[in-house]
Amino acid sequence: MTPTVFERVTVIGVGLIGGSFALGLKQAGLVKKVIGYARQKAHLDVAMARGLIDEASDDIAQAVSGADLVFISVPMDAFDGVLRAMQPHLSDNTFVTDAGSTKQSVVANVEAIFTSDQASRFVPGHPIAGKEQSGAAAACADLYQAHRVVLTPDQSTRSDALEAVITTWQALGAQVCEMPPHFHDNVFAATSHLPHFLAYALVDLLNEHEELGNVFQYTAGGFRDFTRIASSDPTMWRDIGKHNGPTIAKWLRHYRDEVDQLIEAIEQENWDGLYRRFDRAKQARDHHILGQSIQSPKE
Amino acid sequence: MTPTVFERVTVIGVGLIGGSFALGLKQAGLVKKVIGYARQKAHLDVAMARGLIDEASDDIAQAVSGADLVFISVPMDAFDGVLRAMQPHLSDNTFVTDAGSTKQSVVANVEAIFTSDQASRFVPGHPIAGKEQSGAAAACADLYQAHRVVLTPDQSTRSDALEAVITTWQALGAQVCEMPPHFHDNVFAATSHLPHFLAYALVDLLNEHEELGNVFQYTAGGFRDFTRIASSDPTMWRDIGKHNGPTIAKWLRHYRDEVDQLIEAIEQENWDGLYRRFDRAKQARDHHILGQSIQSPKE
Repeated sequence: MTPTVFERVTVIGVGLIGGSFALGLKQAGLVKKVIGYARQKAHLDVAMARGLIDEASDDIAQAVSGADLVFISVPMDAFDGVLRAMQPHLSDNTFVTDAGSTKQSVVANVEAIFTSDQASRFVPGHPIAGKEQSGAAAACADLYQAHRVVLTPDQSTRSDALEAVITTWQALGAQVCEMPPHFHDNVFAATSHLPHFLAYALVDLLNEHEELGNVFQYTAGGFRDFTRIASSDPTMWRDIGKHNGPTIAKWLRHYRDEVDQLIEAIEQENWDGLYRRFDRAKQARDHHILGQSIQSPKE
Repeated sequence: MTPTVFERVTVIGVGLIGGSFALGLKQAGLVKKVIGYARQKAHLDVAMARGLIDEASDDIAQAVSGADLVFISVPMDAFDGVLRAMQPHLSDNTFVTDAGSTKQSVVANVEAIFTSDQASRFVPGHPIAGKEQSGAAAACADLYQAHRVVLTPDQSTRSDALEAVITTWQALGAQVCEMPPHFHDNVFAATSHLPHFLAYALVDLLNEHEELGNVFQYTAGGFRDFTRIASSDPTMWRDIGKHNGPTIAKWLRHYRDEVDQLIEAIEQENWDGLYRRFDRAKQARDHHILGQSIQSPKE
């Protein structure tokens, strides 16, 4: 399908995700004018200076007026305010999509705040992309190239809105897939939120532990990689905890059961059982992760 | 201190660790002849072909005879047999050191098998180095450059043996530190064994989970890095479990308590507490790990 060429796209939040979306569209010739909104003028200045956006606005009402497409890429806790601020000012034919890390809470917000007509033009999305650096300064046009974007539309989502969002992401090089919001939140609780929480937990456990002192001086590459995601933004991850709490807690409980089984295997000196568990994991990882064709971004 | 130049060094186990030790010594001109021992002839052939060793032997007695230094780099489960096989054939002035991942079990083995005179010339060691590839084919002379080597001598260790081992490692570019065996096993249970067990546990939990199907297709860079060590050799890690079991189990229990605290924070909607925990971990990691001057090897 040919991607839509938009007259006017508004990006709410001009960080790495929003800025890269804007720049990708501009470089692909898929938009005539991009309006960027951010709460902090400094972010807008960087976005303007780097040519990510054509016009900067600190007023959501003005920013979304007349937009063909609005892309929301703000922290999870900012969604409620942003949706309320834009709702009265959306045009009758504006499509809206987002990049929020959890989807049930976004969908619930949209249903509570938008009219049903507006909600039918909202396509919930989650690009699985990112890198170590954040902010408009780190935005790049090819951030989504060969990365996955998950959309979570439902029966009420208008097919023209869905098609416009799909073809736009595809034009940026992304591989689009669809799933229900609750499945999205379950999958990413298990594969993303859980490991982030676990990495934070390991570093916090060992930090200045009374038995070990400054133990980090003895760590090697395995520890560095295992804990890399513990250098992520704590505000972002607290918010993901708030917005997907029960599902994350469920996976933490599943994981605790696995840890209990490891403890039990050691206490029972069940070395064959331990081996089988390790071997199964290695086989699965080598098969599924090392063989991955989709790029694994620094998220 | 000037490193010793050895007439004859025997390397028991010519894999990545032993082969790199041998090649490093040869290239630094610190040894006149290296004898390599391995159970499998194929490994010796690779070591000979690559010039890691000067002479190959499949007979430990013959391999260690007349050696100035014996370097043991075999899997943890092979130590007992190797020590028993070499014991009657060690010369009166042979120094012995090793590269085992756990130290209390090695020290106990040596004390049980060696005479007290032989044991006084044994310097327990653990180079914190490695890479993704293993075997003699992956050996390289600079593997230990800027990496840490932990030695765990005690009062009975002869100072000339200790000094020879220290200066040899330093000549290979390593940073040597000393600690008691039980502290070594506690430190590496926490910083290395624990994360390996945890990474295996996460992959095993998610592998073909009934709620998620093939969920690995949705994983990103954070998951890939977190689980990298779950692609490690399951036999090696089962053996480390066998040789450091109670200490690893202790840290698994400490970690389970951390997981319980995360679950409790979510259930109580204690988002400030969750934030403080994440922020503490990020600060600690950014400070200690990102600022590390010692190289972090692929262990």
